[in-house]
Amino acid sequence: MLIVGELINGMYSNIALALKNHDKKIVQTCVLEQITSGADALDLCCGPASQNPLIDMPWLVEVVQEVTDKPLCLDSSNPKVIQAGLKVARNKTIINSTTADVEKLDILIPLAKKYRSGLIGITISAKGIPQNKDQRLELAAMILNQVSEKGFPIAELYLDPIVMPINVAQNQIRDILETILEFKMISKPSPKTIIGLSNISQGARPRSLINRTFLTMAVASGLDSVILDPKDKELMDTLITAELILNKNIYCDSYLEAYRKK
Amino acid sequence: MLIVGELINGMYSNIALALKNHDKKIVQTCVLEQITSGADALDLCCGPASQNPLIDMPWLVEVVQEVTDKPLCLDSSNPKVIQAGLKVARNKTIINSTTADVEKLDILIPLAKKYRSGLIGITISAKGIPQNKDQRLELAAMILNQVSEKGFPIAELYLDPIVMPINVAQNQIRDILETILEFKMISKPSPKTIIGLSNISQGARPRSLINRTFLTMAVASGLDSVILDPKDKELMDTLITAELILNKNIYCDSYLEAYRKK
Repeated sequence: MLIVGELINGMYSNIALALKNHDKKIVQTCVLEQITSGADALDLCCGPASQNPLIDMPWLVEVVQEVTDKPLCLDSSNPKVIQAGLKVARNKTIINSTTADVEKLDILIPLAKKYRSGLIGITISAKGIPQNKDQRLELAAMILNQVSEKGFPIAELYLDPIVMPINVAQNQIRDILETILEFKMISKPSPKTIIGLSNISQGARPRSLINRTFLTMAVASGLDSVILDPKDKELMDTLITAELILNKNIYCDSYLEAYRKK
Repeated sequence: MLIVGELINGMYSNIALALKNHDKKIVQTCVLEQITSGADALDLCCGPASQNPLIDMPWLVEVVQEVTDKPLCLDSSNPKVIQAGLKVARNKTIINSTTADVEKLDILIPLAKKYRSGLIGITISAKGIPQNKDQRLELAAMILNQVSEKGFPIAELYLDPIVMPINVAQNQIRDILETILEFKMISKPSPKTIIGLSNISQGARPRSLINRTFLTMAVASGLDSVILDPKDKELMDTLITAELILNKNIYCDSYLEAYRKK
C-alpha cells in the first residue's frame, strides 16, 4: 500500500501560515512527522489560502525535497500550478489529479509523460459527480482510453472512484467499494487504485472510526494507495492489520512495531 | 446482523465457578451485561470445567430464561447435551453446532426440526480442518444436501466456515472471507452465515484490533451473524460503523448511540 500523507495542505491553518510567510520549518516538520508515522509519499496542496499558487507550489516542492526524497503528489485543479511544481521536482511525482474531461486529459497526460510522473485520474467530469458504479466505470474507461491513446503507461495511472461523504451519499458507498475491485479488472495491466480517505467522513462523526472502518473494506477490495492522515495512529494500526489479515505482511506478535520500523 | 454474546462459557473462570456452585446470579449478571452491550442472542457453553454438562446445560438454559427471552445458542459437541438444553428451552434456540459428518447430521438435523431450532453447520469433518475455499464449499454442500434431504428449512441453517487463528493459518484468512461470500450464493434461498470471531486472534495480539478489522471485512463479505464479546466496546462500535457504511443503518451524527438504543 502506498500511503500518501495529506497534511501539507493550505486548508490547514499551520500550512496556510507557512505559505503566507514562506516559513519552511513548519512544512518540513510536518513532512518529517508524517514520514515517521508511516507516510510513503506526501501530498502537496496550496489550497484556497494561497494567493499565488504558481509561486507557492514550487516553493513547497523545493522545501519538501530538502528533507525527503519520497514521492510527491502535486495536488491542484489548475494544470499550470502542477506544471510549476513538476519543473522543480527532483523526487518522483504523481499528478493529483485529472478529471475525465478531454481538455484536462489533453494537457495533463502529456505533462505526466514529459516529467515521468504518475497520474491520478478521478472519475468525475464537467457533467458532475457519478451516481453509481456504472457511471464511475464509464468515466474510468474514458480516462484509460485517453491514457492508452497517448502512450502513457497504465501502471502509472491511479484511478480514484471519488469517495463521497457518508452523510451525503450513504447509498453510494458500497458501490464505491465494488468500483475499486472492478477498476483492477478493467484492463491488463491493471491501473492502480487510490482514494482520498477523509472524504468519507467529511462533516460526519466520529471521523476516525468511520475512516478506518471504510479503509479496512477498501483494502479488502484491493486498494493500492490511499491519501490519509498518517498521524492518526488508530487508522494506521488498522491499515497495518488489514494488510496482515490479507496476508500482505507476515504475522508476529509485534507486527505493528515491525511494520512501522520497515 | 445477529450478534451472539460468547461470554456464558465454562472456559471463563466466573462461569466455571457459577457452574460448579450453580450460582445463577453470576450467569444472569453476565447475560444482562451482554444484552445491554448489544447482544441479540446468547451462546451457552458448559466447557471443559463442567463435571456434568447433561445437568449443567439445562440449568444454564433455565437460569438464562429467567432474565431474557432472547434466542439461545446451545453450544456443545455432544448432541445429548444439546438435547438436554432443548428439552427445557422456551426461548428460540440455535444448535451450535453440527459438523459435516453423517453421524452428527443424522442426529442433529432431526433434533433441530423437532424443537424448531436453528442449526449451525460448521464446515469441518472427522477428516480434519479444511485447508482452502474449495474444501469448505464441498463440506457446506454436503451439509446443505443433508439439510434439504431431511426437510429442514435452509433459512434456519447457519453455515460457519471455521475461522482459523491468524498466527496459525494466515494464508487461509482471505479464503475464509471469500467463502462467506460464496456461502450466500450456494443455494436459493441462501443459508445464513456465522463465524466465531475470537478464533481469528487466538494466541495472537493485539486481539481486539485483529478481531474488529477481520469483522469489518467479514461484514463486507455479507456475514449474517457473529459470535463475539459484546462487552468489547471498540469492537461493537466498529461493527455498527461497518453496517452503517454498507447502508444497513441510516447515518446520523449520533448513529452509535441511536443503534445501541435500538
